[in-house]
Amino acid sequence: MFKIAIDAMGGDNAPEAIIAGVEKARNEMPDVEFQLYGSVERMQKLVEKDERISLIQADEMIEMGEEPVKAMRKKKQSSLVLAAQAVKAGDADALFSAGNTGALLAVGIFIVGRMKGVDRPALMTALPALKGPHTSFTMMDVGANAENKAVHLYQYGILGSFYAKEVLGFDNPRVGLLNNGGEADKGDPVHKEAHQLLQNGSDAGYMNFVGNVESRDLLQGPADVVVSDGFTGNATLKAIEGTAKTILSVMKHAIVDGNTRSKMGGLMLKPALSGVAEKLDYSQYGGAVVIGTNAPVVKTHGSATAGEVANTLQQIETILKADLTGKVAEFVAAHPDELSGKSVDA
Amino acid sequence: MFKIAIDAMGGDNAPEAIIAGVEKARNEMPDVEFQLYGSVERMQKLVEKDERISLIQADEMIEMGEEPVKAMRKKKQSSLVLAAQAVKAGDADALFSAGNTGALLAVGIFIVGRMKGVDRPALMTALPALKGPHTSFTMMDVGANAENKAVHLYQYGILGSFYAKEVLGFDNPRVGLLNNGGEADKGDPVHKEAHQLLQNGSDAGYMNFVGNVESRDLLQGPADVVVSDGFTGNATLKAIEGTAKTILSVMKHAIVDGNTRSKMGGLMLKPALSGVAEKLDYSQYGGAVVIGTNAPVVKTHGSATAGEVANTLQQIETILKADLTGKVAEFVAAHPDELSGKSVDA
Repeated sequence: MFKIAIDAMGGDNAPEAIIAGVEKARNEMPDVEFQLYGSVERMQKLVEKDERISLIQADEMIEMGEEPVKAMRKKKQSSLVLAAQAVKAGDADALFSAGNTGALLAVGIFIVGRMKGVDRPALMTALPALKGPHTSFTMMDVGANAENKAVHLYQYGILGSFYAKEVLGFDNPRVGLLNNGGEADKGDPVHKEAHQLLQNGSDAGYMNFVGNVESRDLLQGPADVVVSDGFTGNATLKAIEGTAKTILSVMKHAIVDGNTRSKMGGLMLKPALSGVAEKLDYSQYGGAVVIGTNAPVVKTHGSATAGEVANTLQQIETILKADLTGKVAEFVAAHPDELSGKSVDA
Repeated sequence: MFKIAIDAMGGDNAPEAIIAGVEKARNEMPDVEFQLYGSVERMQKLVEKDERISLIQADEMIEMGEEPVKAMRKKKQSSLVLAAQAVKAGDADALFSAGNTGALLAVGIFIVGRMKGVDRPALMTALPALKGPHTSFTMMDVGANAENKAVHLYQYGILGSFYAKEVLGFDNPRVGLLNNGGEADKGDPVHKEAHQLLQNGSDAGYMNFVGNVESRDLLQGPADVVVSDGFTGNATLKAIEGTAKTILSVMKHAIVDGNTRSKMGGLMLKPALSGVAEKLDYSQYGGAVVIGTNAPVVKTHGSATAGEVANTLQQIETILKADLTGKVAEFVAAHPDELSGKSVDA
């Protein structure tokens, strides 16, 4: 029986959407216990307690706009901090929130804690891979860190490979380095060094590094695991999101504000266009995962529906079943120097 | 009479497309002389020499895949190097190429030369601004540099403001810093410092800094001049390009491979969809400009048509007419410490 600690107060539609998602998940996931942290008074109106759903009182909540580390330190009775403490104490196996991303990162790193050997946990997200062997790829770091050293990127290659293999079931996942050109000597010193470390790690058999990838090609799926520094990964992810959103909106306006012919064409094309939007909607691939912490810490977006909350909870169960944390820990124990990049660098 | 030195051998369809573009431009631009550098034997079959078109023999050419600095040093008789030398010698006022971007940057920086006070020239491109007061914005650096210091970004704010004001005719152009969040304290140390320098420069009246902008919002046009380090700017530009291309291609497939209803809908929607593609096609805003060199150095894409070549040549004439280089030089002479960021930092 896995136990998931849930920040029931985080997100635009909390606690309603979170609780509706938990109820949906409860029916689909018989082997999971759900611990809901939040206002018991509000929560108990929304859900019947049962043997697999428990309600735990939290007197405070962290708002979307709050400064993450400050909020974590000040609001010790918040739903997010209490849920993270439960994971730290071993009372829960994983942490879920739809609230403040920065605060979730902060409690993931400082309360749940960094995995031994991992210097800088990363935020990882899945994106559609339109021409790859799989329908999606994962990219990290998409914004946990404003700056990264080369060795962090190397660690993301290892961690991402474990995730793609153990959780997604990808065989020999291809690791790519997001860089500003295809050749090995491209990029600033950090990316040049990261390329070398990843190549050495690949030569040593720890991953399958396929070289640099460029942001222009990402949606084609040139790699299963795309490794990036947090600043560039964040800018790239947001550029992809923003461009997709802008184009679909411009397209919609062209149809709606167009002449009768355009409107009729839009109506006839609607099923095909919905298919396109669906292909590009990466929320279907689950939430964003904080990778490199002592237990799974997973985020869904603030406006997530009950269905998306349930999907993310299922993703957490998959991560737990795959024992991602345990497998990485085993690897680190067996190869104590690998994650420092030292031995592969020699 | 302005003189433009043209690398007639650079680009996928050179020299044909280049020469066809020059002929088109010659008819539209009575005050410009065109110096075509390349194989005279090949060129003279394509164009009649006249008093405003001269053909100058170049025995070599730099290929698309060549390592830029190495190629520039080795191929001293290449069309690109000879054209750049003509600008340096004062025999031409500006440089144009549709060839190897890196090589154009190299000759721009090392032969045409950096403008006094500018540390690291940048590559600048225009992108559509769908909701801004203008239809486009310019972004720099989109890849001339793999690394930038904060003071470079400050210089881009000054240079970009001059370009937007003098060349594009924008009144009091809004300068934004591409960063990973809206607040002033966001980003790595380089971006935090750049934010401070830009703010100080704005307070001193040298530009109109509107704060951080995020890649997600760029196409909405939150700023007229977007300043970025070259690594992030390159990743962001390529992510926007790649996403737009991918979506339009997925859309096309959804129509073409769809059922009869989809195909008919696509046919009816075609004019509206073409309008969308046109809105997003930023080649209409001209070529990429190397900003910060002693004379205008401008690039159009490798597969540019004659019409695009002619448009870019007109853009160069506009830059020359606006006397961009002279105006920046005047500013630097009047404020000798401004571009170092020192006085605004105090």
